This record gives sequence, structure tokens and C-alpha cells, in this order.
Amino acid sequence: MAALRLTTAGESHGPALVAIVDGVPAGLELEPSWIDAYLVRRQKGYGSGGRMRIESDRVEILAGLRGTTTLGSPLALRVPNKDHTIDRLPAVHRPRPGHADLPGMLKYGTDDARNILERASARETAARVAGGAVAARLLDALGIRVAGYLVELGDVAAAPVVGELDDVVRRRELSAFQCPDPEATEAMTAAVDAARESGDTLGGIIEVRAHGLPPGLGGFAQPEDRLDGRLAGALCRIQAMKGVEVGQGFASARLPGSEVHDEIVPDGEGGTRRPTNRSGGIEGGMTNGEDVVVRVAMKPLASLRRSLRSVDVRTGEEVDAARQRSDVCAAPRASVVAECVVAFELARVVLEKTGGDSLAEVHTRLEAHRRACDELFRA
Amino acid sequence: MAALRLTTAGESHGPALVAIVDGVPAGLELEPSWIDAYLVRRQKGYGSGGRMRIESDRVEILAGLRGTTTLGSPLALRVPNKDHTIDRLPAVHRPRPGHADLPGMLKYGTDDARNILERASARETAARVAGGAVAARLLDALGIRVAGYLVELGDVAAAPVVGELDDVVRRRELSAFQCPDPEATEAMTAAVDAARESGDTLGGIIEVRAHGLPPGLGGFAQPEDRLDGRLAGALCRIQAMKGVEVGQGFASARLPGSEVHDEIVPDGEGGTRRPTNRSGGIEGGMTNGEDVVVRVAMKPLASLRRSLRSVDVRTGEEVDAARQRSDVCAAPRASVVAECVVAFELARVVLEKTGGDSLAEVHTRLEAHRRACDELFRA
Amino acid sequence: MAALRLTTAGESHGPALVAIVDGVPAGLELEPSWIDAYLVRRQKGYGSGGRMRIESDRVEILAGLRGTTTLGSPLALRVPNKDHTIDRLPAVHRPRPGHADLPGMLKYGTDDARNILERASARETAARVAGGAVAARLLDALGIRVAGYLVELGDVAAAPVVGELDDVVRRRELSAFQCPDPEATEAMTAAVDAARESGDTLGGIIEVRAHGLPPGLGGFAQPEDRLDGRLAGALCRIQAMKGVEVGQGFASARLPGSEVHDEIVPDGEGGTRRPTNRSGGIEGGMTNGEDVVVRVAMKPLASLRRSLRSVDVRTGEEVDAARQRSDVCAAPRASVVAECVVAFELARVVLEKTGGDSLAEVHTRLEAHRRACDELFRA
Amino acid sequence: MAALRLTTAGESHGPALVAIVDGVPAGLELEPSWIDAYLVRRQKGYGSGGRMRIESDRVEILAGLRGTTTLGSPLALRVPNKDHTIDRLPAVHRPRPGHADLPGMLKYGTDDARNILERASARETAARVAGGAVAARLLDALGIRVAGYLVELGDVAAAPVVGELDDVVRRRELSAFQCPDPEATEAMTAAVDAARESGDTLGGIIEVRAHGLPPGLGGFAQPEDRLDGRLAGALCRIQAMKGVEVGQGFASARLPGSEVHDEIVPDGEGGTRRPTNRSGGIEGGMTNGEDVVVRVAMKPLASLRRSLRSVDVRTGEEVDAARQRSDVCAAPRASVVAECVVAFELARVVLEKTGGDSLAEVHTRLEAHRRACDELFRA
Repeated sequence: MAALRLTTAGESHGPALVAIVDGVPAGLELEPSWIDAYLVRRQKGYGSGGRMRIESDRVEILAGLRGTTTLGSPLALRVPNKDHTIDRLPAVHRPRPGHADLPGMLKYGTDDARNILERASARETAARVAGGAVAARLLDALGIRVAGYLVELGDVAAAPVVGELDDVVRRRELSAFQCPDPEATEAMTAAVDAARESGDTLGGIIEVRAHGLPPGLGGFAQPEDRLDGRLAGALCRIQAMKGVEVGQGFASARLPGSEVHDEIVPDGEGGTRRPTNRSGGIEGGMTNGEDVVVRVAMKPLASLRRSLRSVDVRTGEEVDAARQRSDVCAAPRASVVAECVVAFELARVVLEKTGGDSLAEVHTRLEAHRRACDELFRA
Repeated sequence: MAALRLTTAGESHGPALVAIVDGVPAGLELEPSWIDAYLVRRQKGYGSGGRMRIESDRVEILAGLRGTTTLGSPLALRVPNKDHTIDRLPAVHRPRPGHADLPGMLKYGTDDARNILERASARETAARVAGGAVAARLLDALGIRVAGYLVELGDVAAAPVVGELDDVVRRRELSAFQCPDPEATEAMTAAVDAARESGDTLGGIIEVRAHGLPPGLGGFAQPEDRLDGRLAGALCRIQAMKGVEVGQGFASARLPGSEVHDEIVPDGEGGTRRPTNRSGGIEGGMTNGEDVVVRVAMKPLASLRRSLRSVDVRTGEEVDAARQRSDVCAAPRASVVAECVVAFELARVVLEKTGGDSLAEVHTRLEAHRRACDELFRA
Repeated sequence: MAALRLTTAGESHGPALVAIVDGVPAGLELEPSWIDAYLVRRQKGYGSGGRMRIESDRVEILAGLRGTTTLGSPLALRVPNKDHTIDRLPAVHRPRPGHADLPGMLKYGTDDARNILERASARETAARVAGGAVAARLLDALGIRVAGYLVELGDVAAAPVVGELDDVVRRRELSAFQCPDPEATEAMTAAVDAARESGDTLGGIIEVRAHGLPPGLGGFAQPEDRLDGRLAGALCRIQAMKGVEVGQGFASARLPGSEVHDEIVPDGEGGTRRPTNRSGGIEGGMTNGEDVVVRVAMKPLASLRRSLRSVDVRTGEEVDAARQRSDVCAAPRASVVAECVVAFELARVVLEKTGGDSLAEVHTRLEAHRRACDELFRA
Repeated sequence: MAALRLTTAGESHGPALVAIVDGVPAGLELEPSWIDAYLVRRQKGYGSGGRMRIESDRVEILAGLRGTTTLGSPLALRVPNKDHTIDRLPAVHRPRPGHADLPGMLKYGTDDARNILERASARETAARVAGGAVAARLLDALGIRVAGYLVELGDVAAAPVVGELDDVVRRRELSAFQCPDPEATEAMTAAVDAARESGDTLGGIIEVRAHGLPPGLGGFAQPEDRLDGRLAGALCRIQAMKGVEVGQGFASARLPGSEVHDEIVPDGEGGTRRPTNRSGGIEGGMTNGEDVVVRVAMKPLASLRRSLRSVDVRTGEEVDAARQRSDVCAAPRASVVAECVVAFELARVVLEKTGGDSLAEVHTRLEAHRRACDELFRA
């Protein structure tokens, strides 16, 4: 089977967002409702303005299924836009700072940022979430769980997120901020309210954790095989992301080596075990069997009520930047996007390890690899 | 012309490192000495142990040139290994924490980490530096400069690096740490000496800055087009990197929107200008005409004199991890690697914008794009 | 701009065929009716059975346009299936010879060929035609025309197709077989009637010609750059194609060199000209400025009324192969598919030469290349 | 493991040809002599002129091995050029018909065809043969054999090649034309002698057959997955190839369906069997378990002693085309190139089916797939 691949299309106010997912094995049960759950989660979160609340995305699966089972052929997913007005919306001559507007106008040689912002918009992540949800479904069928959650919002930081991943998810579900820490959730509410008051916006930091991955996924034969680089690249391709780290991340650059690496000790049964997981589950570009842990930093929304300066490109005069929406913080919702792109990259390395055309084949081989890892040194 | 692409091969103690660079336009002047200057820089830096000092890498260009001019055909670069002993070196049964050793053994099903560490070694970056130096040569011919330098080492931080990029490079050249701040350089020396004393290792943070890029390089049509994600992916594919950020990076997640985005103001001549560059020169996945600024966090070397615990996989007994070398800090040298991978990604987006087969064609088109950007809004 | 790329999805009896076309420059006028004209042509042709006649495909453009102008973002095309019954259609346990059925069942480990034939079906070419029509639109805007037509059907061969391409197209439009030769058209009618009578099927040979391509598109730097290989690969990826040739093709293997190559002579104005075009417009993997001419051989339909032997895989007993449809010959219709995949590959090499993000940029650069070719040797 | 991929570099008179082969599993025994045997075979054949005879290519493996075992890391292969004079060879102002010379000059904007012909030369196939030999080694370790041989030369055609593939190879080895038919070999000798006499050149047709492939390799999920298209593309990327066909190829377009498709009949043990192999072992873009059979048509050498007309591009005057060499026929040697590129594509689809990182993993999975194919319908 060819490599897992996601191709998206769609504008913010066009007819629909579309995603084609290549390389999903045959025989996977995939109800549209599985994907819809991710789309719903992508649209909720304290701090979102009007549009998000009234939208309620639903996926239509146009290809790749017979009944609710994948065929091994490409999945085509369509998420219709309720606000399909692209042909009527006005031109935009005031490029917004922090957006694609101005560089995009210069790239395409147009004085109308509408031609840019329609595709550059974070609305596109609906397609990435739909595609990532498919990957998450595959991982789920193989016993691998992925969860994204908010760990910082503005200057509010949650307590370190520890414990079983299923439990983290349960706690996350109780929070309007997709944050597993109830105290932080309260402080985040206050921070958002204050920012709304002052017409400002807030960013945040999202953590994604994956549990159940065997060692040896990813690789180092070519630089492009390295899982950490693939995750970092995928996460920084999400709109508004300005940084990413794996495990201890930037902190590890400031600590001595003796406090950074994860020692290897006997597990008492002939194998090995890790007392710590500072590396975020990735060593040498591969999973090492511990939970994969990554964090991504999202800048505040670039459309402020308290407007930023811009220029009307027809007149050259200084103006307020055009405002397209009025959310205060999108980081809670972006945690779903981050979760989905991580799931997608992880599904890719799983399938690189297993090859195969059907879920049965993939499952058998992954289990064989798990066993082989478990037994390699036990002789 | 097809896309710019780098393919590397080579083991740490094999005959040679090899790189093939596809997609370099014809007509570029390329002396081997240009590449050698990068290879030399990759091998020097306070804190490096014995092996680095005696090596002195030299590139041999096996293909792609006639005289010293590129033909448009693939460049093949060979960097011979002086220590070509792979067939005689012993098996390694004590996987080193923080290295590819253990996950690699499980991936390939071997109890000998020698089969893993030879390719996973950072020695491979010699090929990436050689390839990146070619990209830097192309950028240089187009008026674009890229420089990497150390801004933190362990808990020592340099003053913010400001000023003309050429001046930054001059200051960097005076430092044994590739750090443009002389005071920080002094503190770094002390930090390395102390770490060496205690048998520990140190990491650091590298900044790479690029000057002279027109707006509109990169893109947002597909997530994979986004320049920030491509840079983040490329940087986190370098051995030992655990985090990356663009512009203000993680700090921007903690600031209000009004302090994060770069306003757009009239330049007084009918065009626009940016009073700040908090975004690191990238908005919406594209260059915006300001300097591109990225930072990458390197963990301390994983091979400590003060050894970490490991397991002898043949016996299952706890042992000291095998030590392969005794440097204290590789971050100064890694700044060259970071510079080179950034140069490579930037050359890729330049060539995506220009297309073309010869340097003349590329140059003409890039200049036309610069002019078009300059004139678009001036009527 | 990233490379031109076509991704398709869709089953024969699923909700829709879907295509995403990446890499189309901004600013191209694209009416859905342009694509529909290709879809209609794909469905007509003497020899087609019932289903083709009642279908009348219409494209819906879900993404990539504002009004009727491309944005530079991916185009998403949807061609709904009128016969959307995949979830109700019965299992198929009698794999049909000459189809994907049996190898597909073994690939995916299923005893139901329905899971295979839905995607393997030539119905998928509706998506390739839609995508190829977009490429043809781009080429058209750049002064490049592509036309496919039938030159053989069973044992009937048309006279060699010569003359201006526009005139060839006019003659093709008069033929129920998409064949520019009226006498051959008559003989083809008789051949199809006879085959229908005997319950048999027929194949044919399609020629595709492209006019208006400047020299130097494609390349030889890597084998993958070669245009002839790309065209051959694209054509043999169409269902039922068993052979392809460029220019004189197989005949050139049987002639002496003095009768195969196209001499280069002065054009009387300081440049060069070719008295012949035996090479089909491609030398050294590149266009040479002459018309590109390729031919592809299509086997007869594999579903015969006069049935072939197969096995019921549940019982192991010999049976008649299941019949899914009753056309006699699909080669006339396949000529549109061939035309479209050739247009797509040609648009790719054009965009590799020009780079750029907007049609204006592409057009300016292509014209500059044409001029440069014209003037290079005129001093 | 990432996809199998071949990247080549090198000019005809540069220092060396270089190939990097990515994606070869670890644990494969690979002696340089295995590759050398292919390189030697590429250089012999009746009809070759002087240069071929004195050359004797030898590969040097620069990376990817420990001892003679692959590590799973990229293999770097170097084939030094004995005639390394690229910097001293004169400019070429008389582009040769049938070569890359003229379109290449227009592509790169140069009046010196030396800049073109050095890379466009068929000398490059030495790298493809080296890379393909690695793929053939892998296939061999998995019980799959591939052989290329000449079936036509000019107007001489060999008898249809039937029988066990090992026997075909034995007969081929006895022929100076890599042709398994001794009578045809004799006639080919006469044809070459006559052509040499008249200063002309000859082309030929090569057949490649592969034995031992299980069903279900390749695919149809995306057009790019189809094995027939991949083989056709790879073969037509070889210098001088003008056509390709699979199985009955062009003949199948001229026969009725009842004489083209391969019926499926009970094998008497609960499974199925094919009485014929007209399809060349590929149905629906996948192997069907029969031998894969493809043919490729090579045009006569474009450098004739009896020279073709050209133009001196500096003066615009008609001249004789520059002659670079004086072979009569390269088709026998090209059969090795064709064999190697087919082996490479087949190894790719095998690895897509199996995934995995080590030969043991690949082997286990391929055998399991063979068994599953054998048992699927036997219940």
C-alpha cells in the first residue's frame, strides 16, 4: 500500500472543505459520527466568538467506504460550509498584521486580500481534523490513543499533566478549555474575560500525548524519516503556531546531560525499562516505547477588536486593519487540530513499519512487532 | 527544473559521507573550497573532544560540475571518513540512553547497537552541511544571506542578537562558540570548563537568521507548502534537537495579541513597512520580507563521562552505558548544521517561486518578483 | 508554487468521483462548462452500452475558485454518481478475467470482488478527465493545444493523421469514434456491429498530439524528469492500456538509424528547423518544439457477452465470469482520458519550467522562454 | 521503512557515476561482485564500439554496508569513470539529431551542447544498473528472478521466448546479443555487420520477464499505484526508448476480447489457475501471479558514421552532426538496463506490500502473503 497522505482543499467561504486520505488499509470500521465528534470538538471552547458557535460541522464521506468499512481506496471527505458566500464577499484592501494577507498579496500580485485569506484561513483545519480523525480511528483499532489538551493560555499555566491518558481525556472533557486541570481552567476563564474586556487576544500552549506505540517507529536512515522532525513540521504547519518542542524541549537545552537523558535499566524479567520519559518518547528519530509527548505554541489571534495599524493598499494611507472576527482565543479548539495532525503522523510511521493492505494484515504485523520487541533481549 | 532535494548516505566509520543535491540550476559557480569552509566550521568549537579536532573534512565533487560551474545535473558530494573502520569496530551491546541505540535495535531486531549508531550518528550532518552549503551558495548568488549562531549554552544566554547580519557574522567569527556576544562567550567558556570538570555535558540554543528574502516565498495552498513548518521540520530532523521556534516563538503564546503581531504602516513612498519583526519574517506560511529568524534547542550530548545507567542486552544486567566520545558540548558546531538546513529550505522556496533551469533565469525572475513586490501598491 | 498534482477518489457506485488538483496558478478562468465538455465527450462513442448513454456527468467545483477564477489554492472537483448503490449491490464471487477482480481479492484478502471492482473500475477516469480538463484549460490559456483521437479499432486502421491540429479536431468531432478519418469511421462501425453480433469486444489505438509546446520542457537530470517516461507512465496507468509509444515508437526499433532521427537544418534566418518529426517531439526526455505525438494501445473490454471462464471462489467450481456491463468498445471514449492525462503531464513540465504563482507570471515567463529559444542562436 | 528510491548523479566524462539507493532493508547480503556482474554485462554485446570494450566498470560501495551486509541505511554506490576529462573536452556546437543536444541547449540557454550531453548520455545508466542490481539482489533473496534479453534487432526477430526463466537466462548467456535464440543471434550478427558496413545503426526490442511474484503487488487505489504504468514509465525513462508494452501489448488492441483475456479455471485443489498469460502477469495494475512480461523498443543509436545533417549554432550553417562514438547497436547492452529498472520497480511493490525494516521481516511477511494467497479460496 502506498504511503498515508492527506490532501486538502477548500476556502473559508467556499462551498466546502474537502480532504482526500490516501493509504488507509481496507477493513477499518469508520462511521461518519467518529469524524463528527472531532469536528464538534474543534468548534467548541471558551473564548470563541459567534461564528464558531453556530457552525456545527458534519462530514460527508464521498468515497472509500462500502457501508461503514474502508475499501483501501482513497477516502474523500466533504465538510460543507454553511456560510458559502465567497462570490459575494467584498474585496479586502487592508491587509491584517499577523495574517497571510500582505505576503499573500505580494506572492500572487493582487491588491485584494480576499483572494488570500479565503484559503489561508484556519477554517482549512476542518479538513485536517477530518483527515486526522481517520488516522486516529486507525490508531484506535491498533490500541494506540492520542490526545491533545491545553496546558497554557496566555500567562496561565496548568499543572504538569500526569497520569493515565484515558484519565487525562476524562478531565479534559470537563473543561471549557480542553485543559485537564480544573484550577487552571478557572484561571483561564478569568484571563479570557479580561482580554475580551480590553479588546485583546490570547494564545496558548497545547500538549499532545500518544500512548500505546511500540518502539522503533520512525527512523534515521534519511533525515526525512525522523519522527520528531515530522511531528514538528506537521505541528508548525498549523495556522498561528510559532514553536514546538518534544519532551522536555527547550528546557533540556538548559539542563546538564545528567538531568536530560532517560536511563535504561533492567525490568527484572530480562528486558529493559525507562524510569523517566524526559525525551518525550522519541530517541534517534524513533519511538522508544514511552508515551510520545509534544507541545506546540500558538500565538494570539491576529484579529483584535483593539485594532492594529494597517495600510489601505489602494490609497497608501494608514488605517485600522480590517477585522474578520472577534474571538479572544482559539487555542482550546486548536488542541484538536494538533491532536489530529499528530495522529496522522503517527499513523504514517505505523504503516511504514507494517506495510500491508488490510487492517488484519496491519494488525497482525504490528502485534508481531510488539512481541518481537518484548522478546528480543529475553532469549 | 524539478524540486531542490537533498539525499544523503554514509556511516560514521564507513568509507565516506555522500550527498546528492538535485535541482540546482545550471551556471552557478561552485568551488569545493566554498563547501569546505562550512565543513571546517562544523568541526570547530570550544567543548569538542579529540576526534573533531584532528578531522578536517574536505569535499570531493563527483558530479554536476564542469570546471567549477554547475551543469543543472545532480551534484554528488563525497566527504571521506579518515576513520574508516566500520568492519573492524566491535559490537555494542550496551545501548546508550538518549541515543538511537535502543529503539534502533528494536526496530531492526538486532542486539548489536553498532548496526544502529553508525548511521544515526551526528557524523551524518557532514553530508547535510555539504548539501546546505550548495544551497547557501545559490542564495548568496541571489543576494540572500543566512547565518547561524549560538545564543544560549546551558544556563548562559547571550544578549539579544541585533544589528546587520554581516556584522553579526563578523562577531560570531571571533567567538570559539559561534556566539556573536563576547561576554556570553566568556561565560560559556567557564560553563563548559565546569561541566567538563564534573563529567557532564551541555546543550544550547541556536538562532538562524536570513536576510534578503523577498516576500511571498513559501505558501499556504497545502499545509506542506508552509515555510514555518518546513523550517521547523528540517531543524528538528537534526540529531539532538528537541524544540524549535519562529520569531518570538513560545513567548508569543504568553503575550497578548497587541504585543505579538507586526503592524503594517505606510513607508512614505506609497508602499508599506513593518516597524517590528516579532513574527520572525513569516506570516501565513510565507516570507513577509523581514529577516527570517528561527531558533532551535539542542539537548546536551548523550554520551557523558559521568556515565548513565544502561543494560547489557546479552545478559540483562545493569551496566554503565558505553561511551563513544567525550565532548562536553556540540551546540556551537551544530549552529552550522542549523544554518545549512535553513539555507536549504530557503533555497527550495526561492526556486519554487522562480522555476527555471539556469541561474540567469532564476536571477532574472527573482529580481522581477522583487520589483513587482516593490511596485504592486505604488500605482 | 508546488508541483501540479492530481489526487482522485471515488467508487463506481459510490456517492461521487472526486479530484483534487494542486498547483494550478491563480488567475485562470475556469468555467465548470469547460470541464463538462470533456466529461460529455468521455461518455459518448459508438459501441458504448446503456449505462454510458444515460449518464451525463456534470462537475461541481467545491474549492479553488472565486467566481470563475482560480485562486491558486487546490481545486476540488466532484462528479456525482447517478447510480449510487454501493451499499446495496451484491457480493461478487466470480472474478472476471482481465479485470482487477482476482488479483485484488488476493491483495486485500477478500472473497468478494465487489470490494475491488468498485474502485478499480474505469469509472474512476471521470475524475482524471475532470482534473486533466483543468490542465488543458491552463495549456489553452498559454497557447498549447492537446487532442486525442482514435487511430485504430480492432483490425481497422485510420489513415495517418496529418494536418493542423485544429483541423484534426474538427474532423474528429464528426466521427462517432473520435476518429478524424471518415472512411475508417465507417469501417469501425461495421467492426463494432460485427463484434456485438458475435458477443465479442474490441480494443483500439489512440493517438494524442500536442501543439504549441516550446523546446526544453521535461529534462534528463534525473530519470524521473524525462517527459517520454512520464507520458508513458501516465498513459499506461489508464485502465486497460497495454502499450504506449512515442513518435515512430516500435517501428523505429526496426528501421535503420538513418530513417529514424530528425535532422537539424538551418531555417534560413539564423535558427534551426526540423524537416521531420519521427521522434514525436521528444528528444533526450525533452520537448524539441515539434508536436508531441504519442500512441496508446487499449485491450478489448474484459466483460464479454460471450463469456469467459471463471471460478466461483466459494465453491471452487468453474462458472461463467460475472458480467458487469455490455459495451463492445470503449476505445473512442478512452481517447478523452488519454488526451487528459497527456494534458496533465504537459502542464506539469510547463510549470516546472516557469515556476510562479499566477497565470500572469506563468505566461510572461513562458513567452520569455519562447523568445529566448527563438533568439538563442540568431545572435 | 521509507519507500525504495534511486537517485543518480554523474556525467559521461566526470569523475564518477553515483547512485544512492534508499529503502533497502537491513540484513541483505550484498557483495560488490554481485553488482559488478551487472555492470560487466552492461558493457558487452556485439555491435559495441571501442569505448565499451576497454571500459570495465567496478562499483565501490561507499555507504550502507557493514562488511557485506546492508544496514538499512542508504546505499551509496560509486562507479568511477576511467575517462575523466570533462574539464578538458571541447565545446560542441553541432547538436546531434536524436539526442538531447538541441532541446537541452534551448532549455539551459547555452550554445555548447557539451553542457547537455555529459549528463544526458546513456553512460548514466551505469548508475541505474548499479542501483537496479541491488534491487535484483533483494528480489533474489526473496525467490524472485528477473531477466532481460533481446527479442528483436533491426528487422531480425527471435522466436517467441518460452520455457523456464532460468533456462532462458542460460541460453541468453551463450549469445553475443543477450538473445536466447541461437538462430536469431546468427542473423543479428549479419545485420550488425551489414549496418556497420553501410555506416548505419540499428535498434531493437528487449523483453524483460520476472518469475516468482505473488499476486496482489501494485494496486489501483491511485493511478500512480498501478504497476503497469510504473513499469512503462521506468522503461521509457531509459535513453533511446520509444515504446513499451505489457504482455500481448499492441497486438491485444487488434484482437477480439475472446482472444486477449486470461481465463480463470479451477486448479483442481480448491484454488484457481490461468491457462494463459496474455496479460503479461498484470491485471488491474497488480501482479496476478503469472510471470510479468514487458517489452521495450529502442531506437537505433543517434550517432551514425553516415552522418546526419545538423547546424553549427555559432554560424547557422549546415554541417555534419558531431559524432561522439561509433557503435552500431546498443540494444543488447540496454537489455541489462531494462532488466535493472524492472527489478527496481518490482522490488518497490514487494516492499510496499511487506513494509518492514529487515530482510527477515520482509521475508516472513512475503511468505505469509504467499500462503494467504494460496489458501484464501481453499477454505
